[in-house]
Amino acid sequence: MTAPLHETHSAGPGRRLPDTQQGMRRRNLARVMHTVRAEGPLSRAAVASRIGLTRAAVSTLVDELVRTGLLEELGPERPGRVGRPGSALAVSGHGPAGVGAEVGVDHLAACVVDLRGQVRARAVHRGTNRGRSPEPVARELTALIRQVVAEAERQDLWAAGLSVAVPGLIARDGRTVVRAPNLDWNDTDLGALLPPGLPLTVDNEANFGGLAELWLGEDTPRDFLHVSAEIGIGAAVVVDGRLLRGTRGFAGELGHVPVEPDGPACPCGGRGCLEQYAGEEAVLRAAGLEPGEGRVGLLATRAAAGDEEVRRALRDAGKALGVALTGAVNLLDPRSVVLGGALSALAPWLLPSLQAELASRTAGAACPVSVSRLGPEGPLLGAAHAVVRSVLDDPASVAEHA
Amino acid sequence: MTAPLHETHSAGPGRRLPDTQQGMRRRNLARVMHTVRAEGPLSRAAVASRIGLTRAAVSTLVDELVRTGLLEELGPERPGRVGRPGSALAVSGHGPAGVGAEVGVDHLAACVVDLRGQVRARAVHRGTNRGRSPEPVARELTALIRQVVAEAERQDLWAAGLSVAVPGLIARDGRTVVRAPNLDWNDTDLGALLPPGLPLTVDNEANFGGLAELWLGEDTPRDFLHVSAEIGIGAAVVVDGRLLRGTRGFAGELGHVPVEPDGPACPCGGRGCLEQYAGEEAVLRAAGLEPGEGRVGLLATRAAAGDEEVRRALRDAGKALGVALTGAVNLLDPRSVVLGGALSALAPWLLPSLQAELASRTAGAACPVSVSRLGPEGPLLGAAHAVVRSVLDDPASVAEHA
Repeated sequence: MTAPLHETHSAGPGRRLPDTQQGMRRRNLARVMHTVRAEGPLSRAAVASRIGLTRAAVSTLVDELVRTGLLEELGPERPGRVGRPGSALAVSGHGPAGVGAEVGVDHLAACVVDLRGQVRARAVHRGTNRGRSPEPVARELTALIRQVVAEAERQDLWAAGLSVAVPGLIARDGRTVVRAPNLDWNDTDLGALLPPGLPLTVDNEANFGGLAELWLGEDTPRDFLHVSAEIGIGAAVVVDGRLLRGTRGFAGELGHVPVEPDGPACPCGGRGCLEQYAGEEAVLRAAGLEPGEGRVGLLATRAAAGDEEVRRALRDAGKALGVALTGAVNLLDPRSVVLGGALSALAPWLLPSLQAELASRTAGAACPVSVSRLGPEGPLLGAAHAVVRSVLDDPASVAEHA
Repeated sequence: MTAPLHETHSAGPGRRLPDTQQGMRRRNLARVMHTVRAEGPLSRAAVASRIGLTRAAVSTLVDELVRTGLLEELGPERPGRVGRPGSALAVSGHGPAGVGAEVGVDHLAACVVDLRGQVRARAVHRGTNRGRSPEPVARELTALIRQVVAEAERQDLWAAGLSVAVPGLIARDGRTVVRAPNLDWNDTDLGALLPPGLPLTVDNEANFGGLAELWLGEDTPRDFLHVSAEIGIGAAVVVDGRLLRGTRGFAGELGHVPVEPDGPACPCGGRGCLEQYAGEEAVLRAAGLEPGEGRVGLLATRAAAGDEEVRRALRDAGKALGVALTGAVNLLDPRSVVLGGALSALAPWLLPSLQAELASRTAGAACPVSVSRLGPEGPLLGAAHAVVRSVLDDPASVAEHA
């Protein structure tokens, strides 16, 4: 059987549950949650009118959501009105929460986000992971995860699931790192090395960055290409509000789109791949700098100070990004391209040549390019929010686990 | 509001209808139709057990489908069995049918396909349409459409809708040709020039070619990239059984993916686009031949006869296709690439260099490339089948119109 190319945990309230009365009840629970989250605080009557169900049906659904700690009642609303006052409903700031974690080349991080979308605990550990074996890295990450979960529990929250962002290709099983060249990890079952007992999803950092942009970005359309960098260059293809994953889970490998067919050899086996022109190491080399930690900050500082060699290196990288993005825009016809991750810090020097290249090659139909406000926090936030979304999309799943 | 990037008429039995009792009834009608189509002839009891509804519920649905001419009863099945014999159900070979039409650069065509998928009428008109204005072309196409519809009506069929394949960019309204460079049509409301009274969809020929491959191909996966050529080079991106359309309807423009960033100028405004290396005119030029009608056949004949100049031109075109497809495979991670349209006739000479290029650039993870058996018939068949699928996916829509 062919696995679907689309993400499920981003499917939103329209997510496909079984077409039965039970499935309809679960979908309606999700509709109540999403409505209160988007427009709350709301009375039961207001929820009922918004989703087109009877007040009685909505009350039954709300009672279940309050009982399982997903909604809370704020007390009587508008006491001056005639009749029995309705109690305003809001998404709970206690109860289930999402745990996000990130394995970066230069850092580890973990955070907890509640159902309202607030970050309630966060921990970061700096230090290179390049060339380290997965076991000690996973041990340190587990310690960070335990730390933020303990901090969340002190605030009356509990972990409904864990999502981990990794800079590499992740198998469709959502736990195996197939290849992470900048960590030098191959075919690693990361799931086996992380805390047991929590529903787990491991995914590519560019995918979580793209989902963060979809869920948290300002005026982000539902169809866009999110380009990010963490040493390598990755992309997330979001189509109609869902992440395109590819048959093996490898979609969005923008870094290995050929830019010059006879260009320099790339470790992927190709030649002239985008990473050979716009990857962190290529840009550092072109700017006459050594690779190492915190180099993106150094590039930004030097470029801001007017260093012509650095500026030229970034201009050339922007041009190469423009060529690769021309191909991607022609294939996907997205509404916009968003630069995130490390690229957002370098955008002032990448964007002019990138946009000029894209505009000259897509005459009259250039795709707008913008810069993410989430910056390097995107993947970590996206991971935690992925868990939160899965709770909002199927509140009954939490009730069953609670 | 953002338009969804996905096709609706290819959504299959899972197509999203309103989440009400009425919507559920319509979905169940579609499930009955798809089940009988895939596995029929079947008794009512067999349909009921396959879709998990009661025999009584299925009987009500079947009665409606028989009444509106979508299913027919073949008479008692297995007369030797105990009890009242069940009547075997089959998809009707009469009643509603799909009309497909095609505006090619060198021809016009129309056909009628019944709900069983059989071509019941077909007409082709050869002659170049390059540089002709849309009105006379649409008049000739209308005459062909009227001819096949009349022929179908004599066989007790009626036209449920019309889909038209055009080699160009089509707006999301499904009727406006935004740009068809090889016809020299721009911003043409083709819908206004075609026979009124039939539900109409105009779409890109590569899209219909890809859908034909999805619906009619042998062992076609649900995730693939279909590459076709009709003077230009287009592609259809099929993800989880649905066509990726792009925000403006322009997705799949593989012909304008850059292959050599500083290559020759392309009429699209870009430089070094794939069409400059693998488009029909570029290949003819490289082979030392003049452009004109039937040139693909001439290329195939000469290549088969061992003409080294033609073979080299096709080898180079295959290499350029391999570079562009490397980018597409990295971005989309499809299960396979299928060469269709005019490319299928040239595949023996394109494939070796194409596959070598793709394999060398996607080390160890090369995507399989196959050749469509539908050849140049794909877009026309895809157009007619698109109408048939829309009937199967929502049989109630036809009942309402009948």
